[in-house]
Amino acid sequence: VVFCQNKTPEQVGGIFARLAESHSRVLGTRASEAAAAAVRANLPEAQYDPVSRLVWWKQDDSLASVSADAEYVLVACAGTADLPVAEEAAQTAEFLGCRVARAYDVGVAGIHRLFEHLELIQGAAAIISVAGMEGALTSVIAGLAACPVIGVPTSVGYGASFDGLAALLAMLNSCSPGVAVVNIDNGFGAAMCVYQMMRRIPG
Amino acid sequence: VVFCQNKTPEQVGGIFARLAESHSRVLGTRASEAAAAAVRANLPEAQYDPVSRLVWWKQDDSLASVSADAEYVLVACAGTADLPVAEEAAQTAEFLGCRVARAYDVGVAGIHRLFEHLELIQGAAAIISVAGMEGALTSVIAGLAACPVIGVPTSVGYGASFDGLAALLAMLNSCSPGVAVVNIDNGFGAAMCVYQMMRRIPG
Amino acid sequence: VVFCQNKTPEQVGGIFARLAESHSRVLGTRASEAAAAAVRANLPEAQYDPVSRLVWWKQDDSLASVSADAEYVLVACAGTADLPVAEEAAQTAEFLGCRVARAYDVGVAGIHRLFEHLELIQGAAAIISVAGMEGALTSVIAGLAACPVIGVPTSVGYGASFDGLAALLAMLNSCSPGVAVVNIDNGFGAAMCVYQMMRRIPG
Amino acid sequence: VVFCQNKTPEQVGGIFARLAESHSRVLGTRASEAAAAAVRANLPEAQYDPVSRLVWWKQDDSLASVSADAEYVLVACAGTADLPVAEEAAQTAEFLGCRVARAYDVGVAGIHRLFEHLELIQGAAAIISVAGMEGALTSVIAGLAACPVIGVPTSVGYGASFDGLAALLAMLNSCSPGVAVVNIDNGFGAAMCVYQMMRRIPG
Amino acid sequence: VVFCQNKTPEQVGGIFARLAESHSRVLGTRASEAAAAAVRANLPEAQYDPVSRLVWWKQDDSLASVSADAEYVLVACAGTADLPVAEEAAQTAEFLGCRVARAYDVGVAGIHRLFEHLELIQGAAAIISVAGMEGALTSVIAGLAACPVIGVPTSVGYGASFDGLAALLAMLNSCSPGVAVVNIDNGFGAAMCVYQMMRRIPG
Amino acid sequence: VVFCQNKTPEQVGGIFARLAESHSRVLGTRASEAAAAAVRANLPEAQYDPVSRLVWWKQDDSLASVSADAEYVLVACAGTADLPVAEEAAQTAEFLGCRVARAYDVGVAGIHRLFEHLELIQGAAAIISVAGMEGALTSVIAGLAACPVIGVPTSVGYGASFDGLAALLAMLNSCSPGVAVVNIDNGFGAAMCVYQMMRRIPG
Amino acid sequence: VVFCQNKTPEQVGGIFARLAESHSRVLGTRASEAAAAAVRANLPEAQYDPVSRLVWWKQDDSLASVSADAEYVLVACAGTADLPVAEEAAQTAEFLGCRVARAYDVGVAGIHRLFEHLELIQGAAAIISVAGMEGALTSVIAGLAACPVIGVPTSVGYGASFDGLAALLAMLNSCSPGVAVVNIDNGFGAAMCVYQMMRRIPG
Amino acid sequence: VVFCQNKTPEQVGGIFARLAESHSRVLGTRASEAAAAAVRANLPEAQYDPVSRLVWWKQDDSLASVSADAEYVLVACAGTADLPVAEEAAQTAEFLGCRVARAYDVGVAGIHRLFEHLELIQGAAAIISVAGMEGALTSVIAGLAACPVIGVPTSVGYGASFDGLAALLAMLNSCSPGVAVVNIDNGFGAAMCVYQMMRRIPG
Repeated sequence: VVFCQNKTPEQVGGIFARLAESHSRVLGTRASEAAAAAVRANLPEAQYDPVSRLVWWKQDDSLASVSADAEYVLVACAGTADLPVAEEAAQTAEFLGCRVARAYDVGVAGIHRLFEHLELIQGAAAIISVAGMEGALTSVIAGLAACPVIGVPTSVGYGASFDGLAALLAMLNSCSPGVAVVNIDNGFGAAMCVYQMMRRIPG
Repeated sequence: VVFCQNKTPEQVGGIFARLAESHSRVLGTRASEAAAAAVRANLPEAQYDPVSRLVWWKQDDSLASVSADAEYVLVACAGTADLPVAEEAAQTAEFLGCRVARAYDVGVAGIHRLFEHLELIQGAAAIISVAGMEGALTSVIAGLAACPVIGVPTSVGYGASFDGLAALLAMLNSCSPGVAVVNIDNGFGAAMCVYQMMRRIPG
Repeated sequence: VVFCQNKTPEQVGGIFARLAESHSRVLGTRASEAAAAAVRANLPEAQYDPVSRLVWWKQDDSLASVSADAEYVLVACAGTADLPVAEEAAQTAEFLGCRVARAYDVGVAGIHRLFEHLELIQGAAAIISVAGMEGALTSVIAGLAACPVIGVPTSVGYGASFDGLAALLAMLNSCSPGVAVVNIDNGFGAAMCVYQMMRRIPG
Repeated sequence: VVFCQNKTPEQVGGIFARLAESHSRVLGTRASEAAAAAVRANLPEAQYDPVSRLVWWKQDDSLASVSADAEYVLVACAGTADLPVAEEAAQTAEFLGCRVARAYDVGVAGIHRLFEHLELIQGAAAIISVAGMEGALTSVIAGLAACPVIGVPTSVGYGASFDGLAALLAMLNSCSPGVAVVNIDNGFGAAMCVYQMMRRIPG
Repeated sequence: VVFCQNKTPEQVGGIFARLAESHSRVLGTRASEAAAAAVRANLPEAQYDPVSRLVWWKQDDSLASVSADAEYVLVACAGTADLPVAEEAAQTAEFLGCRVARAYDVGVAGIHRLFEHLELIQGAAAIISVAGMEGALTSVIAGLAACPVIGVPTSVGYGASFDGLAALLAMLNSCSPGVAVVNIDNGFGAAMCVYQMMRRIPG
Repeated sequence: VVFCQNKTPEQVGGIFARLAESHSRVLGTRASEAAAAAVRANLPEAQYDPVSRLVWWKQDDSLASVSADAEYVLVACAGTADLPVAEEAAQTAEFLGCRVARAYDVGVAGIHRLFEHLELIQGAAAIISVAGMEGALTSVIAGLAACPVIGVPTSVGYGASFDGLAALLAMLNSCSPGVAVVNIDNGFGAAMCVYQMMRRIPG
Repeated sequence: VVFCQNKTPEQVGGIFARLAESHSRVLGTRASEAAAAAVRANLPEAQYDPVSRLVWWKQDDSLASVSADAEYVLVACAGTADLPVAEEAAQTAEFLGCRVARAYDVGVAGIHRLFEHLELIQGAAAIISVAGMEGALTSVIAGLAACPVIGVPTSVGYGASFDGLAALLAMLNSCSPGVAVVNIDNGFGAAMCVYQMMRRIPG
Repeated sequence: VVFCQNKTPEQVGGIFARLAESHSRVLGTRASEAAAAAVRANLPEAQYDPVSRLVWWKQDDSLASVSADAEYVLVACAGTADLPVAEEAAQTAEFLGCRVARAYDVGVAGIHRLFEHLELIQGAAAIISVAGMEGALTSVIAGLAACPVIGVPTSVGYGASFDGLAALLAMLNSCSPGVAVVNIDNGFGAAMCVYQMMRRIPG
């Protein structure tokens, strides 16, 4: 896995080329379009998603066949502005071979939209809950779920959100048991944590 | 109104006695039992509630007759530890002549308990929402209500709650419109704000 | 209501077009001129104010006829740099059908200018008090008024204003009863809160 | 589960008695010796551990029979001062039916002590890593393990530890993938999160 | 000058005795009653004020004769809880030979009480403005005065006052020119600063 | 006085033109070159200094004749990077009619350079001490001087200077008596405070 | 080395007894008088200093013979309140076999007292500079010395010292080269760092 | 030594030319390519490294001959993003005549890479440990080394790294003895501190 931010496109392209020689798959996070282009110059079959800003390359697709009734990770997010972080989490989990379900735009201001996904929440093996501003979504979901919930605070907001601090503190103080938290905007980290859980669960 | 904290019982007793000469009702907040006793030494009919830590004196009871179908303030609180602040708000509002409804122990970890009060929430003229830890209750209530919601963060919690800072920031960043916030543990202030709203609403 | 910041003009234009099909009025906050142009490409009768950065569209004007002797909201602001936030509040309240009075440039450094508006302050049904730097205006106004005061701290200032934190803390600690506070620069939120108060007041 | 802090012994005793009527097991966290005594007045078979400050009651012991070759949770802690939090986590997990292994006093200042437990680390299904001061243990363990690691920062330290903030920030910024974090001193929360992971893993 | 806090009564008594041999006057700040008693054991003519917590000793009274029409320092304070800090400032200035006027309990919540002292404010050679909570008094006074204003934030307040931080930030951001600020609760420091101004002003 | 930051050149030019009609002198702080040009379009005799970023206009020069043996303000600064703030202070004081002496580049890392100015320090009627980074200059100067010292922390520094916070806190905690502090980078405010002191000192 | 804080006297006594079996010397920091008594119950020749709160035991005194013209560490401290931290540093260094010189009560408010020690400063092989409040001593000393300076911020102060944060930030931002910093009140850590430097210097 | 940041290329060029007249070597830190070009316009033999952003000039090379078996400083860094700070430290130490060894990309997530350098760590006379994010490298190294370790936190990271604050706090709270810390990103300061240690060590 390559953290592309603060690296030049040339550096990213070079690292991917080198890693592709010894690995069967490579993932880059926080990649600009230019970085993705540099990757594809060497590895034309590499793929890029401008929302999640992930770039990835796989030797073959055989890895990706996930059974449709496998245990799944649910990625939930509060608002459309949280989408890039949510997709970073979801696509990373998919890259790692997890089955992923999505419940987007389910912020607590309109809580009925969250309840439409109740069955999805209660059936998940793990949940990644992505929210900025006051981060309340994570507590509400954890109150409804019986599985571990990884909260991802985002830097969405302004003023007293202090670039995600408000959401971070809220999630750390969740009154619902079973919540653990990763760094602000760290969708990748949440996916890694959930992937390591899922590996041990059969099915 | 007398803020009793940091005053000696003698000082509180003296202030009440002096105010009772020129006013028909006096309220003291954050009063210890000793302070309340000092008040009652001069004004035997004064009343004290050890939960809300309010002490009050009224010349006569005629003020208190609130019509049972008047517009009402709803005071909601997340957990039992938030009760002293919630009761400071509720009893202050009652002292000021408001009709008050209560919905306690409705934290978002068990959101079905909140929904049992849905009608009460949607019928209120104003809501005071009291919560510590992550303070998520306020956003959820404001998403359900059509009236103004005054959030009161409490210092309940530990560690990264930073004595109420987490709840304060969460409420300031509420994604639900119509929320305004008072200082940590300031049940009295919320009641005053709501009282000034209610005075203009007939009924 | 659409929060336009961090959205492309095309996204804003599309959301407005879609909402205008099912609603009789749409409001966008924090809109750039480009976003407003994109809205007007589809909805030519939409209006934009570059100071408040609001863009709005209404199906017809019949909504806007506010009686000249209706209860009114007073929007007060401390300095000219606070004007964008004050106008976001004032115009949002007007969009929502409230009668709005304004008292601008009444910071406490020249307190006589504030007193010229004393009658306006004492006659208001609700006040939105907008101030940056030390945020003292809100406490002074709340001491003069008998109605609820919603404080809006602004990010105006430098150094130890910490982008509005100083004003936010000052307003949360107001020694005048009846003050509640919204997020830094959140003129829209203050207007929503006040609108929900005003709806219940006849007149 | 009962959070006993800030409750009187009588309250704790009463809550336990009431819950024991409808549940087969009850756990109390942050319980004083007095609170535990009050519990045992009603439920003589309840048990108390003064290090973890947990008090618990179970209807029968049949729940506790954990297979010796079941998947296990490893609870690691950096120093002896972190022991109460580590034991809160370990005993809670045991109460919930998890098999628990312990690796204590393995702080990074003497990293050879940590490496003595390498096999234990690499064989765990989940790890709870408890550390105060600079919280470096969690990153080092997560670099060695292939399972999810839940970091529990503790308030152990002084000065610029700011009551656990230094360890909290360190763990949130872990450069090792697979780490998620709970509130300062929240051993219980870590155990709950891990318990919800373990339930889905057969064995 | 002796800062008595964190010193034993014996230490304070000893320091005073030693200083009195080589100086004609000695002042101690933050002195407990026990410390004052220890001073008086050696220097029976020493005086103590339990509000300001100052203890002082002068060889003779000839120093204290201040002309009744000398330029004066005005010490203003917002609430009764700020009184100990205000008196520390006022009595220190008097000890140093300044003529001092007082305007107490003039917080901005009841701004008419402040205006009753308008002449006193406008005639002062320097003003020490003492306030906790939101600290707004200092800005209002500085807007009315033509002399330097030294703001003393106090730790009076709770919650988001953060032990005086809110008042400190407010005063540092004062929109009125001519304000400078000392540390939280530092009445002594304000008096020293003003004393050094006054020495150069004849009269 | 006009605070030009966040105003367009046209606005600044217009305000100057309007003020010049009713006042004999006008000062603008934090002015860009463009703003200064806009002022001079209307008032050709206005002057601008690109270091202090002050722009000023005076009806005639008769005000500026300061006696060479008048009491003087000393402006001291620690490093060359603090110069813009120091010059804002010095030139503002001169604009207001004060005699100003300068001691620049006298940071405590090379304390002998400070001691070369000892006579200047001890003869001053007031001192403005400008320093970033650790802000130690102010304490050292106040230990050497017998007059009031106004500390101006600057945002010079990086990392743990937190944009001037380190210097601000250092100055507020000065162990030398007679120090008061203004906002970070607020050279203008220090000059105003000192000007109001100096007006009362004859000579 | 044993960090005694938060350990019971019995625990401290036991640890010392156990360590004395396998080591020729043992040091305990932050020890209460009771802890020291518990140590001496087993090891009667152990010594305790109530100022530094160190307790130590050595098998024989042969270790302590330091040549009078060896390279020395200078421990400097700003005020008498910083003495416990300074002595923790000095006595720890002595325990470790370093020659130690002391320069106490040399705060920058009276900088001439510091200059009386100029020769001592310039001859040192390493300096430990202990200061609270604004922590300016460290920068001034580092400007005078040619050896490494380890700054120890102390929690001495009140209000905006924020329990040593002001001094910590000041020392981290020192404009004098050659300064490094340890945790607030960590005299022991500074001594350890200096001891590891000194070991390599012959003499 | 010249701190080039915030200076124009012309200023930097001029300062270098002036210093080269009276010194035999000059070093500039945080220099842009433009600044380096301006230096070389006057001093063509000056050298520039774009990674460390150092520019330096030496009259002759005779200074640089360091014995290959001299005591050495080890510069260790956690990740490639920390390289500019690590090289600022390493090249500054080399400029000052120290022998420097490097161990890069040895972050604790892959602790085996660190152990490959164990001999280098244990043989060093001093270590500069550079790390961002959670800064754990410094504690681990200090646990392995017997020499002083100077920690340099870097601003590498995002979200709750708060621009290096997390790493700074972690290093200040290191549980390994012998660690002292410099400002965030201050590679130069660490090198100066180590240089002053090394000067006294023969060899």
